[in-house]
Formats: sequence, C-alpha cells, structure tokens
Amino acid sequence: MKVQGRSWRTVWQPGDDPGAVWIIDQNRLPWEFAVVRLTGVAEVAEAIVEMRVRGAGCIGATAAWGMWLAAREAWQGGTFRREIFLRAADRLKATRPTAVNLAWAVDRMVVVAGSGDGGVERAWVEAQAISDEDAAACAAIGRHGLGVLRGLSEAKPPGGVLNVLTHCNAGWLAFVDHGSALAPVYAAAEAGVAVHVWVDETRPRHQGSRLTAWELGQQGIAHTIVADNAGAQLMQEGLVDLVITGADRVARNGDVANKVGTFLKALAARYFGLPFYVAMPASTIDGGLEAGVGCIPIEERGADEVLWVAGPDAEGVERRVRVASPGSGAANPAFDVTPAGLVTAFITERGVCVPGELACQLP
Amino acid sequence: MKVQGRSWRTVWQPGDDPGAVWIIDQNRLPWEFAVVRLTGVAEVAEAIVEMRVRGAGCIGATAAWGMWLAAREAWQGGTFRREIFLRAADRLKATRPTAVNLAWAVDRMVVVAGSGDGGVERAWVEAQAISDEDAAACAAIGRHGLGVLRGLSEAKPPGGVLNVLTHCNAGWLAFVDHGSALAPVYAAAEAGVAVHVWVDETRPRHQGSRLTAWELGQQGIAHTIVADNAGAQLMQEGLVDLVITGADRVARNGDVANKVGTFLKALAARYFGLPFYVAMPASTIDGGLEAGVGCIPIEERGADEVLWVAGPDAEGVERRVRVASPGSGAANPAFDVTPAGLVTAFITERGVCVPGELACQLP
Repeated sequence: MKVQGRSWRTVWQPGDDPGAVWIIDQNRLPWEFAVVRLTGVAEVAEAIVEMRVRGAGCIGATAAWGMWLAAREAWQGGTFRREIFLRAADRLKATRPTAVNLAWAVDRMVVVAGSGDGGVERAWVEAQAISDEDAAACAAIGRHGLGVLRGLSEAKPPGGVLNVLTHCNAGWLAFVDHGSALAPVYAAAEAGVAVHVWVDETRPRHQGSRLTAWELGQQGIAHTIVADNAGAQLMQEGLVDLVITGADRVARNGDVANKVGTFLKALAARYFGLPFYVAMPASTIDGGLEAGVGCIPIEERGADEVLWVAGPDAEGVERRVRVASPGSGAANPAFDVTPAGLVTAFITERGVCVPGELACQLP
Repeated sequence: MKVQGRSWRTVWQPGDDPGAVWIIDQNRLPWEFAVVRLTGVAEVAEAIVEMRVRGAGCIGATAAWGMWLAAREAWQGGTFRREIFLRAADRLKATRPTAVNLAWAVDRMVVVAGSGDGGVERAWVEAQAISDEDAAACAAIGRHGLGVLRGLSEAKPPGGVLNVLTHCNAGWLAFVDHGSALAPVYAAAEAGVAVHVWVDETRPRHQGSRLTAWELGQQGIAHTIVADNAGAQLMQEGLVDLVITGADRVARNGDVANKVGTFLKALAARYFGLPFYVAMPASTIDGGLEAGVGCIPIEERGADEVLWVAGPDAEGVERRVRVASPGSGAANPAFDVTPAGLVTAFITERGVCVPGELACQLP
C-alpha cells in the first residue's frame, strides 16, 4: 500500500542488499516511518518478539525470510549443518505461540530448504513465494469483501455512510500487503462506497489507534478512534453496520483466535443482530485443529503492557507513564477465542463462507 | 474507609473550618493522597467537571455541600437572593449529565434551603444527612451483597477463591463511604470469604487501574488489573464467578446507565451463564424514567481522553503521552445503557431484587 504516495510492503528482501531482510518497524509507527535491516536469525526472532513486525501474515512472511537467513547461516565451511537450520526453525516458531501462520511458514521453509545443496536459493524462492501469496490472498479478500460491503451499503438509505467497526490491526501492516479485515474497506473506498471505520484503540498495545488509524489516514479513509469499551454503546445508537476483524488462528469448526477483545465485539454484534465478519487468508485455518475454544494456546504477555503506556509527549519525546496503582499487578492475555457460532461469515481469498463450510476453504 | 490506617470519607465539612467543604482529590490518586478545600459554588462545580470527585454518590453529596455554599453566597447585604441560589443549582446540575444522584441531591437541597431565613443552617443539616444516608446505604449494600457472595463462594469447591470482575470504580471513592459494587467485596473479605477481584482498567480514564486497584490494595484485598478487552477471555477460562458493577442511573424497568464498557461485560456474563449484579443506592433509580435505553443522555467527553494518556513516569514526573495516530480523531461516550434483561439482580440498601421488582425499591 502507499505511504506518502510510494508503494511499500511490510517485509521484503532487496535485490541490491544480499544477506539482509528489511521490515517496516511497526513499533515506531505512527510517530515515525522507519525501516529496519535484519541480517540474521537472531535479529529476525527479536523483531518478532518485540513486535516490530506483528500480525499473522506479516509474522509468517518475516519468519520465512528468517529461514532464508537460517539456510545461509547453516552453511559453515562448505557444509550444510542441518541442526543449525532446524534450531533456527524452533527458535522462530517459539517467538509467538498463537498465530498459525508462523509455524506454517517455517515448516514450509524446512521442507523446501532443509536438505543442503541449493537450499539457500530454494529458500529465497520459497520466502518470496510466501510473501507474494500473502499479498495476493489479501488482494482477493478485498475483492470478495467488497461484495459484502457493497451489499450492506446498498441496503442503507440513499446517501448513507457504511459504518464498519474493527478491532486491533488487520490492515496491510499485519500482512505483506493489503491486509485482511481492512482489505474490503480499501476495496470499497476505491469502488466509491461511502465508508467510515470505528477504530477500537485495542489496549493494551493500541494497535488500533496507532496502526489502523495511521493506515486509514494514509489511504484517506474516514475513521474515528474509540476506547474498546465503546462498541456496544455505538451499536445501540445505530452507528455500526457491521464488524470485521482479522484472525490469528481459525479452527476447522470456525472458532477464531484473534486479539483479545474480539470476542466482546462479536457478542455485542450478535445481541444487536449485526453481521460479524472474520477476514483472513486460508493459511490462517489450522487444519489440524477441530475446535478452537480451550485448544488454542493463548499468549500471556508481560504485565507492564497493562500497567504502563508509552508514547511521545507533546514535544515528541518518547515517554512511559504509569496508568495503574503502584503495587497492583496485572494479567495480560493477548488473544481470545470467539466461538464459531458468533461468526456470520468468513472472508478468505477463496470467497465468503459460513463457519460450517470453513473446511472447504482449507489451503 | 481506611487510608494508611486512618478513616476517611470522600467529601466532608469540617466543623473547625466554617465556610469550606473538603474533598479527596481523586485526580491525584493513586500517585498522591491529597485533599482539596472548596470555598464556593464555582470551585465545587469545577471539582465535579474536572472529576476531582466522581462517582454517582460522591458527586451527589459534593453537589449537596455545594448547595450549602450556595445558600451562604445567596445571602448578600442581609437579603436572601433566591435567584443566586437557583442559578447555583442549575450550574451544579449542568456539570455532569448522566448520573441521577446529582440532580436528585441538588433538588432536595433547593426544597429544604431555598426559602431564606435559616436556610443556611437547614442546608448544612440536609447536606450532612445526604452524606450520612449515602454512607449508610452503601454499608447496607455491603451487608446484602455479602449474602450473595457468600452463597456463590459456598457453591465452589472447598478452598476455592471467589473471583469477582468489576468495571470502573464503584468503591468508596465513588460514594461518601463504603461504595456500591465493592461494598459486598469489602463485607465478604471481612467475613472471611476468600475473594479475588479482576479489575478492568476502564479506559479512557483508568478509574479501575487507578482507583479500584488502589482501594483494594489499601484494604488488602487480592486483585489483578486487566485490559477492558480481557473479560470474555477470563470467563471462557473459568476464572470469573460473578460480575458486579455500580450504576450512574437506573430506569424503573431496570435498564442501567453505567461507565461505558459495562454493557460488554454484561453480554459476556450472559453468554457464559454467569451472574451479573448491579449494586447501587436506591437513590440511583430514576423514578421518572420508565426505560433507560435511548432515554438516558450519554455524556460525550473530549477526544483527548482517548488520544492521550497521562500519568507519572518512572521518576514520578507527571507526563502526557499520545497513544493515537496524529491527525486521527476520537469519539468518547462516557456511559452505556445495559438493558435490564442482562441484569441478574440489583443490590440496594433495601435488599436484593430482580429487574422486574425494581420499582419496589424506589426511595
């Protein structure tokens, strides 16, 4: 997508910088648009853990590029040391436990490039393919989602603006390009559908107010940030037409692991009879997982993300302020699992389907 | 309640400081325990608008004391200038639109003290009565709520800890003393019930992580702060036994206006079959309001509360940091209205009742 008029992806391997992978540093957004050069598996793992890259698709593609770097590192003194390559795979898979794309991308790289001769070249081709497929899948999600949004828009009184509520960031920053939940919004705006997005700030890390709002602003799409608490109130006032979120992992039955708080919005949408859509590439479906509730590991992140908030002050100096009573502790589950019964439909690159048909979308 | 071992109320008129009302400055909590001396209607109105005092009962009692100051100000040159007194009433009622106690307390003061001779003395007696009644009502809520919590605790396996989830602050800081939602928790802890409280941080103003956590810490009650987004996840994991919140206004049919986000927790409790209790003095019931949904004015506060977060840095210096993409706007509805059908029961000073019986609790 465009940033100040120029096209970018979230992760890429520049032909003129052999041995390096570049990423947009999402921790510095929206205050600063900066890129980071990663030259080894350790740096890639650190970038994922520190959430310089985040979002299911973006993590998957970055890890794939990390495995290309791993293939390079495994060649030592003319020998391919497979144990080094596999250790890198384990290390990258351990960075974040919830998203399925991460393990999926790493496993794919291991199959393709785990056997020595020509492995580095095959790894490059595979990582590039994973990136391109991710971008293409998201573009297709946009096309399919456009039909959904256009239909809901046409059901409104003439001149009405379609109000979308989204949680967290499932825009292009969460993928290689285009995004999942926001791809239909971008497609709709481009097709001339009048659309406005309610952006959940998404505590504790503020991916909504920081990343989604920045993305929408860069593309010139009307949006308003709200506290995560506001969703039911907005729906009760008739100010929401549909909810769209992304997903970090979807079970075969349609249970959806996504950023914590998604479940609450799904419950509110159901109460008000509003459609709740989950948009994601089919690679997000965990074909080995029959049901998600109680079965998907939920990442527990550090208490400091809840107890402290960081950001620039009015002069642009980065500060960290306490927002909780000193001496009190916090719990910080990063995801929740929305039961399939609350999902109106999934939007993948293969089309729109209800939870019961999800297995047909398996990659 | 106790602060560092000494008993306090949130608002009081010290006998040795005639002409002044004292409050705990809740904007400085939990970083600093400070009191503020208010000597006129303008200062009282400012304290309510700036949320130095907040919470339905505390606002009501503070406004009552403000009307005592108004009665003093209305005596000019030996004459009681009723228009000054009534203007003060309007001014105080306009400070916050959602809570019913504010208008209720001011109206009660107007009836008692609006007629000149002896009005100042009658105003003092009435404001003191409003304060004492508020504290007594909250103490009674604690006694009735104790029965509820004890029953739920006894239904757990032996040795189990009762897990309460609460939103915002409906502790003693929100009233004159004891609190509403937290009064049963305090009573249960004192009675030896093992209890732990999940504290919603309550964006955008963090009344949960700042005030509720501080209150619970001062009373030595186990608690854990969570992002507002975590509620459904905690319930899904079986970590919540009941939800208790306060209320800013309750309609005759049982619809509940309370801090924005309450509605989402009520929906989650219903989904998981968990009891959702609303605890409040009967004065919170708006006898003139048949239903709440669509009828209770929802205060829209400034966007900056969402876009910026203030607090002390690690050195204790108060800072204000941006948490949203520059150029993006925000909406900030401060309350929502939970439909009566989601409320298991109300706990008032008169007892525990289901929504359909609420009219019997009218003061």
